[in-house]
Amino acid sequence: MTLSDLRQPVMQAVLHDDIQDAMDSVERAMHDTVNSEIEVLRDASRHILAAGGKRVRPRMLMLAYMALGGRDFDYAAAPAAAVELMHTASVVHDDINDHGVLRRGRPSVNAIWGRTFALLTGDFLFTSVYRLLAPYKDLNVILANAATALVEGETLQAVAVKDKIFTSEMYTRIIALKTAALFQAAAEMGGRLANANAAQIQALAQFGYNVGLSFQIIDDILDVLGDEATLGKTSNLDVSQGRGLTSVVDQPVDNMGEVVESIKRKLLQGDRIQQGREQAEALVSMAIAQLEVIPDSPAKDELINLAEFILTRDH
Amino acid sequence: MTLSDLRQPVMQAVLHDDIQDAMDSVERAMHDTVNSEIEVLRDASRHILAAGGKRVRPRMLMLAYMALGGRDFDYAAAPAAAVELMHTASVVHDDINDHGVLRRGRPSVNAIWGRTFALLTGDFLFTSVYRLLAPYKDLNVILANAATALVEGETLQAVAVKDKIFTSEMYTRIIALKTAALFQAAAEMGGRLANANAAQIQALAQFGYNVGLSFQIIDDILDVLGDEATLGKTSNLDVSQGRGLTSVVDQPVDNMGEVVESIKRKLLQGDRIQQGREQAEALVSMAIAQLEVIPDSPAKDELINLAEFILTRDH
Repeated sequence: MTLSDLRQPVMQAVLHDDIQDAMDSVERAMHDTVNSEIEVLRDASRHILAAGGKRVRPRMLMLAYMALGGRDFDYAAAPAAAVELMHTASVVHDDINDHGVLRRGRPSVNAIWGRTFALLTGDFLFTSVYRLLAPYKDLNVILANAATALVEGETLQAVAVKDKIFTSEMYTRIIALKTAALFQAAAEMGGRLANANAAQIQALAQFGYNVGLSFQIIDDILDVLGDEATLGKTSNLDVSQGRGLTSVVDQPVDNMGEVVESIKRKLLQGDRIQQGREQAEALVSMAIAQLEVIPDSPAKDELINLAEFILTRDH
Repeated sequence: MTLSDLRQPVMQAVLHDDIQDAMDSVERAMHDTVNSEIEVLRDASRHILAAGGKRVRPRMLMLAYMALGGRDFDYAAAPAAAVELMHTASVVHDDINDHGVLRRGRPSVNAIWGRTFALLTGDFLFTSVYRLLAPYKDLNVILANAATALVEGETLQAVAVKDKIFTSEMYTRIIALKTAALFQAAAEMGGRLANANAAQIQALAQFGYNVGLSFQIIDDILDVLGDEATLGKTSNLDVSQGRGLTSVVDQPVDNMGEVVESIKRKLLQGDRIQQGREQAEALVSMAIAQLEVIPDSPAKDELINLAEFILTRDH
């Protein structure tokens, strides 16, 4: 047994402590940023944050940062928190349009505070993203573009429902915009914060994008297969509501939830679920291959683990 | 007659051409920024922009910029456009919560495209603000804070309705957050873009803040006095809807419009209207006094005219 063999587990243990510290910094940054003097904004924001969530996006940013040698967790925590709050803002607004009453195993903001305050809480979270990242100069362009893509993706999904466009091209375009763009921004920002070189930043961006696509495909598969108890959010598969596709897509579309689920079912029915899984696996393989230009390290291993976790998670 | 007497009207004419050019740049920047590939976002955004509006906020920014010697209108147009789009985003979301069907004399986004797309259009406008300002480094902190204040003010207004807090302290706090903060940001950014000194920037910020307070007071007075035909937006004074204050404020508050109007009526009834006008006049006087540290110029005169216009406008 060589010294290097001995060192490996120790380094892993140190790394895991570091990751914990980094993610704790992210939680603090989110918690502090939503500390509005307006109670309902603070309470509703903290309610949705306290419900947890997988924190995949900020984790990807922090791991990319660490893999490129970044050590100042507080410095990287604010952009990571901004990425998670951007996702959270869209979730809060989603639950208005979808009439979601459960989110992450808890009542949605919409369900507790009503539509007006849910809308304003989502807006507040958007502006909190902006406040968090504003001091980070050049990073703002990256997140601003990802934020726009996210909203465009959500909108395209609503359009697909309204116009009944259920093609896999449309599905791919939707998830690229609404999910992959933000994952891409997270990984890219992690690299930039650590002063990675252009090739490494490009590789991280591609990595984030492909993992993001994969994440959304798996998410949709789990959504179709899952039930409320497992997923902790309102699953709109409940056919007892007795609403068919046609009756719901009448203009204006003001209840999207179950229609979106119908599309997902259509896209992922039968062996399509298997096809989806295979596609997700291929995307993750491509993503990991991109990381070749980044030196091996325990942090890089964790970045790879994160990508592989996407495939194996059951919620 | 001296040469200087002759020059004055010529300079004013040149200035008015410049202002027109500057405001044209702002319109172009807004129009271009909302040019999304997602048709509904582009169409709904352009619909609300094409309806016009007074453009008071971007005009204030451009005039502050010009008064401090700024000449690159395209450079200043993007932040000015961002300020107007921030206001526009909040207007689109307002019309969801208030069920407003008319806005600037046209059907609201909500009325044409339905709630889901109105919510997403508002979100898209938020992210467009962010995209526009992202390249402007230090200005982002200013607008991010103003954006948060705006959302906090809207929320506080909703809280005041729900909890029936109709004090003038509450009213002042609401309008400071929801309106004055963005006016302040507009004037301050104009100064910063022109590399004004610290005292001038501070003066412009105070000017913007006081004019913003005044603007909202007058706006509320006009709202109470006006009718749909004059104001071009849904006035919720229509008592034929037969809904009293009590019945509407049941939790969750999902229809704010008429309740907000009730509060305004209460605050501005009888001689309170006169008091409001006097307060607005005093604020404008204070605002203009702040400009002492800025050298006299035709552009400064226009900034003063803008503040005075706030008081005399009838819509």
